[in-house]
Amino acid sequence: MTSTKPQHAPQIHFPVVDDVLQVGGIPLPRLAERVGRTPFYAVDRRVCSAQVATLRAVLPPAVALHYSIKANPMPALVQHMAGLVDGLDVASGGELRTALDTGIDPARISFAGPAKVEGELRQAIAAGVCLNIESGNELANAARIGDLLGITPRVALRINPEFELKSSGMRMGGGAKPFGIDAEQAPQVLQQAAALGLDFQGFHIYCGSQSLRLDAIIEAQSRSIELALRLAGDSPLTVRQLNIGGGLGIPYFPGEARIDPTPLGEHLAGWLPRLAQALPEARLALELGRYLVGEAGVYVARVIDRKVSRGEVFLVLDGGMHHHLAASGNLGQVIRKNYPVAIGNRMAPDGSLASATGPLCTPLDILADRMELGHARIGDLVVVFQSGAYGASASPAMFLGHPPALEVLV
Amino acid sequence: MTSTKPQHAPQIHFPVVDDVLQVGGIPLPRLAERVGRTPFYAVDRRVCSAQVATLRAVLPPAVALHYSIKANPMPALVQHMAGLVDGLDVASGGELRTALDTGIDPARISFAGPAKVEGELRQAIAAGVCLNIESGNELANAARIGDLLGITPRVALRINPEFELKSSGMRMGGGAKPFGIDAEQAPQVLQQAAALGLDFQGFHIYCGSQSLRLDAIIEAQSRSIELALRLAGDSPLTVRQLNIGGGLGIPYFPGEARIDPTPLGEHLAGWLPRLAQALPEARLALELGRYLVGEAGVYVARVIDRKVSRGEVFLVLDGGMHHHLAASGNLGQVIRKNYPVAIGNRMAPDGSLASATGPLCTPLDILADRMELGHARIGDLVVVFQSGAYGASASPAMFLGHPPALEVLV
Repeated sequence: MTSTKPQHAPQIHFPVVDDVLQVGGIPLPRLAERVGRTPFYAVDRRVCSAQVATLRAVLPPAVALHYSIKANPMPALVQHMAGLVDGLDVASGGELRTALDTGIDPARISFAGPAKVEGELRQAIAAGVCLNIESGNELANAARIGDLLGITPRVALRINPEFELKSSGMRMGGGAKPFGIDAEQAPQVLQQAAALGLDFQGFHIYCGSQSLRLDAIIEAQSRSIELALRLAGDSPLTVRQLNIGGGLGIPYFPGEARIDPTPLGEHLAGWLPRLAQALPEARLALELGRYLVGEAGVYVARVIDRKVSRGEVFLVLDGGMHHHLAASGNLGQVIRKNYPVAIGNRMAPDGSLASATGPLCTPLDILADRMELGHARIGDLVVVFQSGAYGASASPAMFLGHPPALEVLV
Repeated sequence: MTSTKPQHAPQIHFPVVDDVLQVGGIPLPRLAERVGRTPFYAVDRRVCSAQVATLRAVLPPAVALHYSIKANPMPALVQHMAGLVDGLDVASGGELRTALDTGIDPARISFAGPAKVEGELRQAIAAGVCLNIESGNELANAARIGDLLGITPRVALRINPEFELKSSGMRMGGGAKPFGIDAEQAPQVLQQAAALGLDFQGFHIYCGSQSLRLDAIIEAQSRSIELALRLAGDSPLTVRQLNIGGGLGIPYFPGEARIDPTPLGEHLAGWLPRLAQALPEARLALELGRYLVGEAGVYVARVIDRKVSRGEVFLVLDGGMHHHLAASGNLGQVIRKNYPVAIGNRMAPDGSLASATGPLCTPLDILADRMELGHARIGDLVVVFQSGAYGASASPAMFLGHPPALEVLV
C-alpha cells in the first residue's frame, strides 16, 4: 500500500453500510434510481446544517454568518441555507433572483461583483438589498438609478486592502486588483457616498478564499478589522455592517487536513469589545460559501466501460469535466491533483489502480488519475467527494452536447 | 514598444475601417446593436467558407473533409458547414440531433465518444450514422441494439495507435489511453465485428489536435495510414472510410504562426496511389474542427468600469471566463497566456497597458493580462480574436448566474 504517500482527509460525512455509501441516509444505488439517471450531484442538507451548527457553536453569538450562494446556487439548497444563516450574498442579478425567491428579508442580502451592469443595479436597488460598491463610478451609477427609481440605495464599500490572505487558493485582495476600492482611495469614496445621500451600511473586506491555514486567516481578519476601524475613524457615515469575508477552506487533495475553527471563535471574541466601543452600531459578519456546503455534496457518475489499454485500467464514465471542472483539474489548478474518489456501491478497494475518465474526447476529461478504483465494474457508481461547492454551476455543462448533471438535495 | 517580445500572429480576417473593426462586413458597434446586448460571440461565415476553400485548394479532390462539430456546435454554423464539407462528426446524442437537423445524409455523419450510453447508441443506429467504436464492449452493445431495432449498425473502429502527435496541444493517442481500441487489440475486434455481421466502414485514427508543426502532423498522418494498411491487411472486412483525424492548429499565443497547409496536400497526394491499390474502396478523410472555424469567430464584451488600482489599469467587462474559459487560461493551459485582444471600436493602441477582467469575483476571471488596451474607455467593446472554436460551448456559462453569451453567425 501507499502509507508513506500523502492521503486524502478521511470522509466523515457519509457512512458506509455493507460496503455501500449512504448519502442523506439512502444507499447510493437507491438514490441513483430515485434521481432517475446519472450523472448527478447530491447535497446532504444535514451535513450543511451540521457545518453551520459547528461554526455557530464556536463563534460568538454577536458574529453574523452569511452564505455566499455562488458556492452552490441550487435553489433548494439556497432555501435551506436561508433558514440557517443571517444573510445571503449574491454575485449577479441571477443569483439575486434566487436569493429573493427564498423569502428572506432583502435587507439581509448583499450583492458584490466588479462589473454590475445597469440592469443589475436597478434590480438590487428596487429589491432593497445592500450593494457592495466596487468603485466610485459604480457609486455614482447607483445614486443616479436611486434618483430615477425614487429609492435610496443601500450601499457598503468593498475595500481592496493593502494586504492579502497568505496561503489561500484564491487571492482577492492586496496589490493592484480589479476588485473593490483601494483602501487608500476609500476616504474619498466615503465622502462621495455621504454627499450623494446614500444609505450607508459599512464595509466589505475580502482578501482570499480556500485557505487551510487558520493562522493566516486570523491574521487577515485582524488586519481587515484594523483597516475597517481606521476607515471608520475618517468616515462621515455610521458603520452598521462589517463583512470580513471568509477564507476557510476544505481539504481536497492528499495531505490536506480539515480546519478546527475553535481558535477563530476565540479570536473574534477578543475583537468584539473594541468593536463595540469604536463601532457600536456595527455587526461583524463572516461570509462563507464553500466551507458551509462543500463537504456536503458528492458527484456521482456511472461506469459505462471498463478498458485495459496497454496495462492500465480506465473506467470510462457518463460524466466528467463538463459537470465537474474543478475535479478535472481545470479550475485554477496549475498541477492536476485528485479529489477524493471512491466506488459508491463497492467501497472497499482491492488495492488495484484505475483512472476514471469522462465521455469527452479530450485528455482533459479525467476525474481520477490512477487511484485505488481498479475493483470497479461496468454499471458501478463513481463518487467524487468534496463536491458541494463550485461543481455544476462552475462547469462547462454544454461542452460536447451531453446532458447536464442533475442536482438533488437530500 | 515591445519589438523583441514574441507577438501575436496578425489578425487577417477582420478589416479595420476608420479605427473600427469590421466583422462580417459590419462595423463592430453596429453589430453589437444588432445583436441586442453584450457579451456575444460572432462567427463570420465567409471566413469559414474561405478556410474550407483554402484547404480544398491544396488537398487532392479524393480526400474528404469533415467538420467536427464539437469545435462549435452553434446550429446556424453547423448548417453552414454542412453545405461545405463531406461529413459531420459528432461526439454526443445532443450533437447528433444538431447534425441531423441540417438535413445532411446520415451516412455522412460519424459519432465518436468513449462513453456512449445506451440511449446514444440507439439514437445513432436508428439514424443510420456511423459509430466510431471505442471498445469490444461497445461493439457488442451496438450489435445487441441493432438486433433489437432490426437495423444493421454502421461501424468504424476507433484505433488508439502506438504513437502520438508530437508537439500537439492535446494528445489523443499513444500509450495507455481511454480513447479507442489499442492497435494491437484491433485484429481481434475486427474478427468480432465480422462475426456480428455489422456494416463495417473502416477506421478512425486520431492522435492529437492543435499542432502548429506541419512536419509532426505529416509524420502522424503517415503513421496513421501505415497502421490502417497493416490492420486492413489482417481484416476480414472491406475498408470504405479511413478517417485520419486532423491535428491542424491555429495560432493563439504570442510567437505562434499560421500553418501553410500546402505541403499537407502534396503529402496526402503522395499516399493516394498506394491507398487506391491496397484499399480500393476506401475514401481518405480529414476531420477538422478548430482549424475550419476557430479563426472565424470573435468574442465581444463591453467595458463596464475602468479602474486604476495601485497604478495598474483594469478594464472590468460584462463578460469573462464563464463565456470564454480558454481565453481565461483555464482550459488545458498550464501557464496562462493572452489570446489576441483589441478594443474593437478604437483599434489603435496608444502604447499604454491595461488588463481586462470579467464580472466574476475570482482572480481566474481575466481575459487580458497587461496588454496594449490602456486607451479603452467605459462602454468600449473588447474583442477576443481566435474565438470561433471551443468558446461558448466549452465554458461554464452558469458560473455566478450571469446571462450566457449570445451567439450570432454573420
